[in-house]
Amino acid sequence: MLDFTSDYNQGAHPKILERLVETNFEKVTSYGLDKYSLSAKDKIKKACGCENAEVYFLTGGTQTNQNVISAMLKGFEGVIAADTGHIGSHEAGAIEFTGHKVLPLPHENGKLTAKAVKDYVLNYYADENYEHMVFPGMVYISYPTEYGTLYSKKELTELYAVCKEYKMPLYIDGARLGYGLVCGESDMSLEDIARLCDVFYIGGTKVGALCGEAVVFTKNNMPEHFMTLVKRNGAMIAKGRLIGVQFDTLFTDGLYFEISRNAIEKADRLKNIFRKKGYRFYIDSPTNQIFILLEDSKLEQLQQDVKAGFWEKPDAEHTVVRFATSWATTDSEIDALEKIL
Amino acid sequence: MLDFTSDYNQGAHPKILERLVETNFEKVTSYGLDKYSLSAKDKIKKACGCENAEVYFLTGGTQTNQNVISAMLKGFEGVIAADTGHIGSHEAGAIEFTGHKVLPLPHENGKLTAKAVKDYVLNYYADENYEHMVFPGMVYISYPTEYGTLYSKKELTELYAVCKEYKMPLYIDGARLGYGLVCGESDMSLEDIARLCDVFYIGGTKVGALCGEAVVFTKNNMPEHFMTLVKRNGAMIAKGRLIGVQFDTLFTDGLYFEISRNAIEKADRLKNIFRKKGYRFYIDSPTNQIFILLEDSKLEQLQQDVKAGFWEKPDAEHTVVRFATSWATTDSEIDALEKIL
Amino acid sequence: MLDFTSDYNQGAHPKILERLVETNFEKVTSYGLDKYSLSAKDKIKKACGCENAEVYFLTGGTQTNQNVISAMLKGFEGVIAADTGHIGSHEAGAIEFTGHKVLPLPHENGKLTAKAVKDYVLNYYADENYEHMVFPGMVYISYPTEYGTLYSKKELTELYAVCKEYKMPLYIDGARLGYGLVCGESDMSLEDIARLCDVFYIGGTKVGALCGEAVVFTKNNMPEHFMTLVKRNGAMIAKGRLIGVQFDTLFTDGLYFEISRNAIEKADRLKNIFRKKGYRFYIDSPTNQIFILLEDSKLEQLQQDVKAGFWEKPDAEHTVVRFATSWATTDSEIDALEKIL
Amino acid sequence: MLDFTSDYNQGAHPKILERLVETNFEKVTSYGLDKYSLSAKDKIKKACGCENAEVYFLTGGTQTNQNVISAMLKGFEGVIAADTGHIGSHEAGAIEFTGHKVLPLPHENGKLTAKAVKDYVLNYYADENYEHMVFPGMVYISYPTEYGTLYSKKELTELYAVCKEYKMPLYIDGARLGYGLVCGESDMSLEDIARLCDVFYIGGTKVGALCGEAVVFTKNNMPEHFMTLVKRNGAMIAKGRLIGVQFDTLFTDGLYFEISRNAIEKADRLKNIFRKKGYRFYIDSPTNQIFILLEDSKLEQLQQDVKAGFWEKPDAEHTVVRFATSWATTDSEIDALEKIL
Repeated sequence: MLDFTSDYNQGAHPKILERLVETNFEKVTSYGLDKYSLSAKDKIKKACGCENAEVYFLTGGTQTNQNVISAMLKGFEGVIAADTGHIGSHEAGAIEFTGHKVLPLPHENGKLTAKAVKDYVLNYYADENYEHMVFPGMVYISYPTEYGTLYSKKELTELYAVCKEYKMPLYIDGARLGYGLVCGESDMSLEDIARLCDVFYIGGTKVGALCGEAVVFTKNNMPEHFMTLVKRNGAMIAKGRLIGVQFDTLFTDGLYFEISRNAIEKADRLKNIFRKKGYRFYIDSPTNQIFILLEDSKLEQLQQDVKAGFWEKPDAEHTVVRFATSWATTDSEIDALEKIL
Repeated sequence: MLDFTSDYNQGAHPKILERLVETNFEKVTSYGLDKYSLSAKDKIKKACGCENAEVYFLTGGTQTNQNVISAMLKGFEGVIAADTGHIGSHEAGAIEFTGHKVLPLPHENGKLTAKAVKDYVLNYYADENYEHMVFPGMVYISYPTEYGTLYSKKELTELYAVCKEYKMPLYIDGARLGYGLVCGESDMSLEDIARLCDVFYIGGTKVGALCGEAVVFTKNNMPEHFMTLVKRNGAMIAKGRLIGVQFDTLFTDGLYFEISRNAIEKADRLKNIFRKKGYRFYIDSPTNQIFILLEDSKLEQLQQDVKAGFWEKPDAEHTVVRFATSWATTDSEIDALEKIL
Repeated sequence: MLDFTSDYNQGAHPKILERLVETNFEKVTSYGLDKYSLSAKDKIKKACGCENAEVYFLTGGTQTNQNVISAMLKGFEGVIAADTGHIGSHEAGAIEFTGHKVLPLPHENGKLTAKAVKDYVLNYYADENYEHMVFPGMVYISYPTEYGTLYSKKELTELYAVCKEYKMPLYIDGARLGYGLVCGESDMSLEDIARLCDVFYIGGTKVGALCGEAVVFTKNNMPEHFMTLVKRNGAMIAKGRLIGVQFDTLFTDGLYFEISRNAIEKADRLKNIFRKKGYRFYIDSPTNQIFILLEDSKLEQLQQDVKAGFWEKPDAEHTVVRFATSWATTDSEIDALEKIL
Repeated sequence: MLDFTSDYNQGAHPKILERLVETNFEKVTSYGLDKYSLSAKDKIKKACGCENAEVYFLTGGTQTNQNVISAMLKGFEGVIAADTGHIGSHEAGAIEFTGHKVLPLPHENGKLTAKAVKDYVLNYYADENYEHMVFPGMVYISYPTEYGTLYSKKELTELYAVCKEYKMPLYIDGARLGYGLVCGESDMSLEDIARLCDVFYIGGTKVGALCGEAVVFTKNNMPEHFMTLVKRNGAMIAKGRLIGVQFDTLFTDGLYFEISRNAIEKADRLKNIFRKKGYRFYIDSPTNQIFILLEDSKLEQLQQDVKAGFWEKPDAEHTVVRFATSWATTDSEIDALEKIL
């Protein structure tokens, strides 16, 4: 049975496991103050080209979104997101749980446009009763988006300009950041990302780690006593080394980007195969997630040999299915899928 | 200067003030257990035709929505509302503050349709990952809606059937309930309202009281220790008599409905005037709120003599303005406005 | 049946009702921006001797504590209070509901001492793991305290010095502020209160109003967009005039203090009676609450003619009972109680 | 430099790392539904002697306490804990963050007594105003306690009887459960623990895992949609296998208890050394945490060669220091410490 369900159904890159084994019996400080975490933070800051950045490690994506957003919003503020944004749709109300509203705007290919955000803010402040409404206090996007699409440097520059104009921090969810950055369609580098937002995270869980996400506050703007806020949220792990060692490994000799490239290469091969065989793409996604529109009968047939991710049902007879490649996908898996298709 | 800004810019019906004066020096129990509150509850239950109902008094509308919804939702649930619904748009995030998401659905004339709710729920449970999303746990509507429109008995019956099918309590925000029920277009009575939902409130603040809303749990379903939940929310007042006396007066000899009728009569007169003079209605609202689409230049001119409520700006040159009548609006005010128009 | 249960079992001072009647049909702005609220704020600022103060009206005491404390605390902070403090014991967890811990310290006669607060803070920061604990971010006291006792000017000066040293705003709950200030034992004025804290409230509900408390931010420190935070908390009433008119009346010609004096005079008479008749005082309270330790058999007998407030049971055979006088207590009530005792 | 700071300053037991490596490339279901998690759950249920139990894996201790307690409490309830309890003192307000109060009772040797809990509940319900106070809705204890002490079977049986009498679920924090159960002084087994409470967790982080705690709902009482509540709290990890594999290993062939024994053996050796050398024990702790009262000058001297945990300062000249052994402590470390002492 082939499995293209997700990019988080295998363990970790072998180099990570090796390092965990090698360092296992060293006694180190807990709560993220160990030498591996410190080293990893340094490497990340260098890779981002901003030595003044502050890096904080968390365990998973929803947790990261929840901690960053709730720490940065003031009480009267909410966070703007595309209506397809992960925080608004697939996090079980994690932002609302911290008392804040997600303010949804219609997406374009999974993306928020600078214009849509600007119009929303202008309309908000034009309302005489705006003080009775939730203030737009932050903007959330993801790179790549939930549909695997990418902001161009121009789009992100314009969006960030609007954010700065209205004093709303821009936060980028980088659960699959590696897959976005190494993709042929991307005109962005990690430095660009760091420059064009206030805070973002580098996803580990979906890019070769067992767990872990690295939050980067890029503008000397880590919220006061963020560590205590994280603890209060139940999000601090005692053995911070577990995440520290992983990111230290991922950011040694460019491993993070190297393994990201594998996912994109395999996805490109697979897209060619789908294209050649006449499958219909539901959305044109340049990264490692491929959304295929299938007739339900066809889907049923495929499911006998391959597992893929249910995405949505646009109508009664079709289903959108996601095929995800990852850092670990092999050519032989693609070969096997080709045969089945 | 005329003032049609809102239905809450004057004090209370004189009979209420009289009763407050008459009962002022009586020593009564506090926290809503006084004899006036008890008497008012009895009268309301009778008026609703359900002796088993439980009634609880709160101070204002947003507070009522927040307390009722947060007490009835389970932790994993959110509340479905029209995207124009008051809880989602004009309550500064009061629901989210209690940890719950408002799930917005597109409105039709300010209303939620049974079909839209059913489709939403079906789609929700059809999603393989529904456990990663906020459960639809309750349905919120208002009667009349924020656009002053009304559900017909048929519409409400259908909507409530869907709610019951999927075990989602139906909650009706009745901030202007009186104005809705006495309106010519309404085919509903207070008994119908009580029968066709799980909980609703009878608005006092906008219908002749200084403050106060009467929550009616119609199906023997008041949340356990609701009083303590209200206290925890800071929503309990020590001198519960203040609201008790008011509702006791409003529900004596049908005063609540009698004064509601005045608002509708005056609104009907005013609508005729607008119609005759060729003004454009933004929405066809049968109740006491009239939404007029004005050119901005015309608006500026009018504003020299009359105050009305800003509603929204549909484009750069027009503004939607709300003219509200109330229990206290007089014919001479309508006459004066007619001259100005 | 006599009733000394509380100081909030009667309505409002007649002058307040008169003013409500007189102003009833005026159309005024809602949400606390009406002319009566503005006038009341001015008068309060003058009475406090600080023209730069900011005043905000809320409806009840628990609501006020909840709104002020949650708006002033940062996410990682809690509020220090005496273990007998109202916020920690009798508000159903209203502070915790907003996500913050109440940090209880042992009381002395219902009061927090400067030394106890300083020791707590020093111990806190001396702990290597203080970042894993709730930061002491604010200090809450009440004047008079829950036991009716008073801070001397010296005590309050010392306490406030500690608060300033450790950058913790000092908040005074003045639910019965009038009764404290006019009491013979008090060496404080309203100006002193305003000077010796960062924020306090002037209680209306227990001192002659139907409802309403006036929060005074004394150091130009009203939290940003406090109005929206209040709205989010469900604590804003539409007809702000209701509270505005009441405080405008209470702060005209010193009415607030004049009616407070009545409670103290009557309490002093009553204390003399208790003393003469050999009753045991549970605590030496100089204000309008009198705590008497009664044998349970005696209590049962008394309860046939007079209602008083249950306070606590120090042992199996005794009960502490509270007799409260108020702005409305009459000499004939005291005479009648004297006969019964 | 020796290091006895904590029992979580080394990695994982080697068998765990082996299994992580062996299973690394298998594609498994995410979010805790993988075969390793399922297998681990089965083994834990068997070890607990209750096949009907439900097991859920979380990442860390504070997170576990927060998720379990907030899911089990009703809105109007708080959780009783010893004043030394971890949830009240060292979790940065994680319980309050979810809206609930921790109700502290004085500890005896770190423990709650059945009598203290019963008295508290009786006093609570004896208060006429109990509905204005936080309901005692749950009881939290830890085994071993924060002072390393243990409840006897008799003590726990009595405490649980009180909990059942007043319908308060009993929750046992087992961060160091292994060290408690294998200790010579313990008269309890894992089955006893499961029988004598409603929910508990088996600590992994401090007993040989990289991360992970296994919550056991023992009475068929896992809260409805607990998975969604966990997701909402940001506490779900995508690669649930990470914790599943670890607990599957720990509960194969009794590894969890075997490695726990090492900590106790080493602690016993160390206690004998302390005793022989005349050190003063601050508390008589039978498990793997040893609390020594040191003069500050002595502490300074020791700190040149050995790291230990700061605990508290009982007075100006002494410090309580914690020496913790663990699953990984070696005899040579004890030898080395003996020389230094």
